[in-house]
Amino acid sequence: MRFETLLIIGGGLIGSSIARAAREKAQCKTIYIADTSESACKTITRLGIADGVADGPADHFAAQADLIILCTPSARLATSAMALMPSMKTGAVLTDVGSVKEHFVDAMAGRVRNDVHFIPGHPIAGTENSGPEAGFAALFENRWCVLTPPGNADEKAVEDLTTFWEKLGSDVAVMDPSRHDIVMATTSHLPHLIAYTLVGTAIDMETVTRKEVVKFSAGGFRDFTRIAASDPVMWRDVFLTNKTATLEMVDRFIEDLTALKRAIRWDDGDALLDSFAKTRDIRRRILDSDPD
Amino acid sequence: MRFETLLIIGGGLIGSSIARAAREKAQCKTIYIADTSESACKTITRLGIADGVADGPADHFAAQADLIILCTPSARLATSAMALMPSMKTGAVLTDVGSVKEHFVDAMAGRVRNDVHFIPGHPIAGTENSGPEAGFAALFENRWCVLTPPGNADEKAVEDLTTFWEKLGSDVAVMDPSRHDIVMATTSHLPHLIAYTLVGTAIDMETVTRKEVVKFSAGGFRDFTRIAASDPVMWRDVFLTNKTATLEMVDRFIEDLTALKRAIRWDDGDALLDSFAKTRDIRRRILDSDPD
Repeated sequence: MRFETLLIIGGGLIGSSIARAAREKAQCKTIYIADTSESACKTITRLGIADGVADGPADHFAAQADLIILCTPSARLATSAMALMPSMKTGAVLTDVGSVKEHFVDAMAGRVRNDVHFIPGHPIAGTENSGPEAGFAALFENRWCVLTPPGNADEKAVEDLTTFWEKLGSDVAVMDPSRHDIVMATTSHLPHLIAYTLVGTAIDMETVTRKEVVKFSAGGFRDFTRIAASDPVMWRDVFLTNKTATLEMVDRFIEDLTALKRAIRWDDGDALLDSFAKTRDIRRRILDSDPD
Repeated sequence: MRFETLLIIGGGLIGSSIARAAREKAQCKTIYIADTSESACKTITRLGIADGVADGPADHFAAQADLIILCTPSARLATSAMALMPSMKTGAVLTDVGSVKEHFVDAMAGRVRNDVHFIPGHPIAGTENSGPEAGFAALFENRWCVLTPPGNADEKAVEDLTTFWEKLGSDVAVMDPSRHDIVMATTSHLPHLIAYTLVGTAIDMETVTRKEVVKFSAGGFRDFTRIAASDPVMWRDVFLTNKTATLEMVDRFIEDLTALKRAIRWDDGDALLDSFAKTRDIRRRILDSDPD
């Protein structure tokens, strides 16, 4: 196994799931987790999913690691990476799981040591739950993991990291960081922002009680609450670090919603019907492509 | 059993589910279904879920029915009701399953025979699938059914209809039609309009292919496609018949989304965090109240 020793920075939902999966499926021999939260570290120790846990600097772990995976919120990625860089072993791989790639790649430009491999990544997996106890080994099964290696990346290192994610059950796609961010703004970031907004709008209605919202949530609202229960800190960072693509998508969305609003106001049933009919096909395609 | 003979107008997802459930759980002896679609009628006959099927006028069924349930799109409810009214038996109950109540109640004002009971209803249940084959008897189990009886409604008739829905597995709530429409605009109509819009915005992105949207849909988009696959005709009618409440909700939503957009543009992370944190509580409350 290429990655005998693994260091995970941030032991939340994703980090703790990687720890569990790396042990079960990728045969990593030694797994370290560092997390700035003392209580998270206690939980990780209790769960027994790491061979070493640190709630402070992790240089001593970084010095042994063949693979370092940063699982912190997007805004802290570059700071974490730079803190560990001096301690890293020659030939080790440094990756991350951040939902936004260009911001991190730009922040690291010219700062990566020549003798380590920097290959940013993003497993498209998650639940609305957070923290080390929420993690589970099967989280990455049948999910896509996107890698965004720089143009001069070592092919063998990319291959090794690809194999690692494949052992965790994922399909791996390689993309350019900016393309990744546009695709994710469409399929993930805009949907999350919309869900947060909608749930907020509903609970702010003066004339409808929260009790009624809960009681009658089966009408469609319920699905939005699951997405809107996702980790607020992580999502704040996603929107702020993928600002350009997110703002572009929000503008397009508001335009489209305004057009439907106008159709409702002017009783233009045909416009509504055309718009609603075209969205059915994509659902069928998603179900057809679904491995579950 | 109070309702020995049942007539269902419209044998789609909801109508065919009522037929199945009424037979299994409510001990209706005779179940008739009328549907304007010849092919739907053939399917209903093949499925064997009705004792009589009509693809034209249903007066002969209406003359025998103790309970008539209109399961047509909202816009056709009043026309259907008025077509059957002259044939109805004295003491029979006329109800519906429409997602909008005030529009229908207003359209029927002063037109209901004194010797029949008009008690509009709305079972808050559904799937994204349509048509007689999509129905199933368990659809209404642990779901709310809202009844909006007029002020002078016969108490016994309301009680009988309540019992009918309870036998189908539902909890029954009684509300004023306009209050129902505001609550549903919040918990159902706005979420559906938003989901239709979001899926449309995503598939209209010139720089992101539909293949990519499908491939990476697990990031959040997927949940929206399920809602946006709902019956387009039904939802067109919902928005046009619940116009005032829907437009009010859309305006509030756009205001809230614009505020979040502004926070993103100006890097106001605290405003984003405050907004995202408050939506988690409602999810917990929904899960706590969930009988599933």
